[in-house]
Amino acid sequence: MVRIQPPMNDESRYMQRAIELAYRGEGFVEPNPMVGCVLVRNDAVVGEGWHQRFGGPHAEIEALRMAGEAARGATAYVTLEPCAHTGKTPPCTEALISAGVARVVIGHRDPNPVVDGRGIERLRAAGIDVELLDGIAEARELLAPFAKLMTVGQPWVIAKWAMTLDGKIAAHTGDSQWISSEASRAIVHQLRGRVDAVVVGRGTAEQDDPLLTPRPAGPRVPTRIVLDSQAVLSLESQLVRTAVEAPVLVAAAANAPDSRCHALREAGVEVWQAPAAAVAPSERWISLLDELGRRRMTNILVEGGGHVLGALLDTDAIDEVHAFIAPRLIGGAGPSPICGAGRAVMVDALRLASPRVETIGEDVYVSGRVLRSR
Amino acid sequence: MVRIQPPMNDESRYMQRAIELAYRGEGFVEPNPMVGCVLVRNDAVVGEGWHQRFGGPHAEIEALRMAGEAARGATAYVTLEPCAHTGKTPPCTEALISAGVARVVIGHRDPNPVVDGRGIERLRAAGIDVELLDGIAEARELLAPFAKLMTVGQPWVIAKWAMTLDGKIAAHTGDSQWISSEASRAIVHQLRGRVDAVVVGRGTAEQDDPLLTPRPAGPRVPTRIVLDSQAVLSLESQLVRTAVEAPVLVAAAANAPDSRCHALREAGVEVWQAPAAAVAPSERWISLLDELGRRRMTNILVEGGGHVLGALLDTDAIDEVHAFIAPRLIGGAGPSPICGAGRAVMVDALRLASPRVETIGEDVYVSGRVLRSR
Repeated sequence: MVRIQPPMNDESRYMQRAIELAYRGEGFVEPNPMVGCVLVRNDAVVGEGWHQRFGGPHAEIEALRMAGEAARGATAYVTLEPCAHTGKTPPCTEALISAGVARVVIGHRDPNPVVDGRGIERLRAAGIDVELLDGIAEARELLAPFAKLMTVGQPWVIAKWAMTLDGKIAAHTGDSQWISSEASRAIVHQLRGRVDAVVVGRGTAEQDDPLLTPRPAGPRVPTRIVLDSQAVLSLESQLVRTAVEAPVLVAAAANAPDSRCHALREAGVEVWQAPAAAVAPSERWISLLDELGRRRMTNILVEGGGHVLGALLDTDAIDEVHAFIAPRLIGGAGPSPICGAGRAVMVDALRLASPRVETIGEDVYVSGRVLRSR
Repeated sequence: MVRIQPPMNDESRYMQRAIELAYRGEGFVEPNPMVGCVLVRNDAVVGEGWHQRFGGPHAEIEALRMAGEAARGATAYVTLEPCAHTGKTPPCTEALISAGVARVVIGHRDPNPVVDGRGIERLRAAGIDVELLDGIAEARELLAPFAKLMTVGQPWVIAKWAMTLDGKIAAHTGDSQWISSEASRAIVHQLRGRVDAVVVGRGTAEQDDPLLTPRPAGPRVPTRIVLDSQAVLSLESQLVRTAVEAPVLVAAAANAPDSRCHALREAGVEVWQAPAAAVAPSERWISLLDELGRRRMTNILVEGGGHVLGALLDTDAIDEVHAFIAPRLIGGAGPSPICGAGRAVMVDALRLASPRVETIGEDVYVSGRVLRSR
């Protein structure tokens, strides 16, 4: 899991800076990709920019605006291939060309089929020297949720749980308040505030009666989704009672009783039903992820419980993990964070790539992305 | 869990140094306590010593030997009240008195009923200024296993497990090789090499067919104990086959079949049977801990599985925890590290005092002592 770091030359330092700038747009720009741009002339940074919010100017435009005349003859370091099409804003390729930029270094080819190399072609046709750095892991990481949405048509799935040091998300009685410290819960609220949806199972909704809102509010208002095949979610639950303030979606099976679906809809909840062919929990998960992809959701946070995350592991749809481990021992037959069918042997276990380990108050916080062989 | 650190003056610096020296005897001195001693005269250290091995000279004697004539008028910082009785060696009180030490600062009163303040009385009677520092948490920690053996009559119980990030000690098939990294397993071997016994349940013995020896060898040769109520441990197991090289003890119930007990004894295994009154797993645990205490075992390492550690948690006998968490997700219904009856609500969960969090290779290593209200 050690990431091989290439020696840091000026080129990669500027690209790292562009990546750093890009992350400032996290939670604000989706379903657009996060993008950063640094303009360098005679070894001096003359412009910096990042895509700040959905519908706003792209990173290149921000950087060119800052550089003004200094952009002429400069090198642009941009984390993603510049767009060549007119979307909500005019194409960035044309802006770079008319500003007189001499060279463009690109962190990652655009996975969006509408762009797909056409930005690079357009720049080259205009006589600009274009270099595509394909080996930058950080640029790939930055782009991964957007790339998944573009290529798989599903959102990036972040699994989150809090457990005791003996691996339980609740006592055998179901009691789970609180496993993790206040500081850990604050991080969860931050995560909620930058994703498109927060997902829990019916069991968690019944047991904890959660609100699932980010507190304080973040850049996004996530849709609160309950996996609830028979649409039994109580009309008295906090989720239903706040459905007019922030969206709630019940993901039900095709055979959910009409009366229940109707009652929830009357209460302001959206009820989405999986196709009749999707019977197993993992099949329903795939339908739901496709549906959320169609809605252009880029990131979703799945907060459990064990059956929900188990079905997700069984479909191999977990992309990223945030686990909070409290230094407590509860013992007993309390639930495990990920159930489902599971893998049969340890060598087939999913692994995290370069996991980050932090201590947050009393807790250990382990986060990272699932290592893919593809 | 933040430990309040008093401002570090010279006195406590010398005591910390004595504690540091004491730990060098870990694994070598038991069932004696680890003890360290620093002799200081005119703000200069003139002697240092620690109890190096069972039967060898005590820390004070080592420090006095190093100081020679410089001990006259010095202050001795010693982690534990000096002994006033003749055991394997003459009493340290007499050595301090005849060396002309002026003052003795003591980290902890001796919990051994044979000493019990008599060392302090003897020194004071000889005109030595004696100060007992009772607030030093590190001195209490150093002494805790010895103190438990002296006062409770049972060894210090260290629970160890390796689990996936989703809280399982094996896949649903039982496969567990390997969850943790080689570097983590090396730490476990170090632990084994300093304790008096390594304990596993029958399930773990059958599933993994372990050797349970420290590799490489450490200062002690631990007795390998299997909790096996019906004495079914296979004569073909690695444990039984190596019973002539390192001791193996099968802890059986009173009603274990005579034929099985006989066969194991013939193979060189000691079979110990709990009293007939000890029926429940936690009752048998208490009998076993009493028995190991009678044998003057100071530290035992319990390596699971879940039922063994669960029964131990239920008797509230876990003193220290070493958990290795691998950044892997296995899913499914694999076993949890601590089962048993467990606690009913999260606020009653056992907590670790000042847990230590390290990354060992790919793994997260959390260790610490169980916080006791007493």
